Amino acid sequence: MKRSGSSSPQGSQTIYGLHAVRLMLRKHPERVSAVHVTERRDDPRVRELDELARGRQIPVRRVGAEVLKQVLGDVSHQGVAADIEPLPPWSEEDLLTAVQAAAEARQAALILALDGVQDPHNLGACLRTADACGALAVIVPRDRAAHVTPVVRKVAAGAAETTPVVAVTNLVRTLKLLKDAGLWVIGADADGAKRAHEVDLKGGVVLALGAEGSGLRQLTRQTCDWMVRLPQLGAVESLNVSVAAGMLLYEAVRQRSGA
Amino acid sequence: MKRSGSSSPQGSQTIYGLHAVRLMLRKHPERVSAVHVTERRDDPRVRELDELARGRQIPVRRVGAEVLKQVLGDVSHQGVAADIEPLPPWSEEDLLTAVQAAAEARQAALILALDGVQDPHNLGACLRTADACGALAVIVPRDRAAHVTPVVRKVAAGAAETTPVVAVTNLVRTLKLLKDAGLWVIGADADGAKRAHEVDLKGGVVLALGAEGSGLRQLTRQTCDWMVRLPQLGAVESLNVSVAAGMLLYEAVRQRSGA
Repeated sequence: MKRSGSSSPQGSQTIYGLHAVRLMLRKHPERVSAVHVTERRDDPRVRELDELARGRQIPVRRVGAEVLKQVLGDVSHQGVAADIEPLPPWSEEDLLTAVQAAAEARQAALILALDGVQDPHNLGACLRTADACGALAVIVPRDRAAHVTPVVRKVAAGAAETTPVVAVTNLVRTLKLLKDAGLWVIGADADGAKRAHEVDLKGGVVLALGAEGSGLRQLTRQTCDWMVRLPQLGAVESLNVSVAAGMLLYEAVRQRSGA
Repeated sequence: MKRSGSSSPQGSQTIYGLHAVRLMLRKHPERVSAVHVTERRDDPRVRELDELARGRQIPVRRVGAEVLKQVLGDVSHQGVAADIEPLPPWSEEDLLTAVQAAAEARQAALILALDGVQDPHNLGACLRTADACGALAVIVPRDRAAHVTPVVRKVAAGAAETTPVVAVTNLVRTLKLLKDAGLWVIGADADGAKRAHEVDLKGGVVLALGAEGSGLRQLTRQTCDWMVRLPQLGAVESLNVSVAAGMLLYEAVRQRSGA
């Protein structure tokens, strides 16, 4: 384990929480190098993790609760952590392959595109929400935008290890490729013609959000199939971008749940 | 104008943006002591502000753009700012009076209750979203919780001047008083029995969220009429509290918009 935020992008990352560690052991055991459990935990959920890990020859180490606290800080780790190989960034090609695979599996892809979000806290918060809403990936432009750094990983609370970030040279070009692949591109804007729930988000969609203040760039806006607006009933001009992303992703999940 | 974040809770606050300044001049001109407009701005929207202010004998001062930037930092101020008297905190009695007034006006009150949110950034972000969704107020417990500080005001981006915060001695007691006043209390939790959109949020409601990690306290949970869950499809155990608040408030606004 390394102290949170101090690891290099190439080094191992530490994830925590029963749910996150179990998911990683089930889905990507090849990326897990060690599991850490606090000495006092001994219950069916921990024994399940223990079995999962041992079945894959992954060492399970007992550590003092103070060790986890020292490494992870003041988070709700539930007495469980794991060292994992970080998720490599995706290329545009990886993204298009995943979109095609989703289409073949008849799954409606959900992708978040952030047009020039520069604040690493906002990128981390968006990654965390994208993960919670089952997004396939988060797209960011290569230039003038935040990328996955230790701060982003920390704010993302583990989501940077499961939800891939795709840094693209030309966001508009990537959006067009995704449209060619059958996805709809929905942009959010205070002046959007429709409200988010008035647009069908049940099929494969890219949800595009701009930087706070400036919003979506003109060319990105022109690439969108629909522009939608989010609640704006108060005095403040715009929502925080990670909250706006949360509302849009929530709306997509709601529509897909058959409501 | 004072440098953002340096003003005392008793001193004047600076708000910015055409929309926020216009709203304050229209709704609470008595709280505005001066309006600042950058020298180069001269268009119908600024002339409208000018007229509103002059009609109320509020001075309008022309300042250099660099002055606004120095005072406000790197925000989208649109060349307009105003010095205002800060919104005083509400008492529990103020809250109950406002709830009664809303009922008499046949408006469905929307209130956010934060049970032990300690991070000022999270409180500020929640205030900003509560404002955007037209919430009547945000309730926080007096102890072991963040209160309105300069950091909170800054993150709230002006919402702390329009959306009142009510610090209460006993959150459960206040929730019960609100239930007596006809409101439903909806708590959010990963194990909630229903999804947010399966509960009717069209009437007067209090949306209750707990601190990250620990969630709602047991007594708060028992006071809720309904517990709802938000999307949790990924590896990360919980949503950021301000994103969760955004999703719940969005859902209430969506239902109320007649969707």
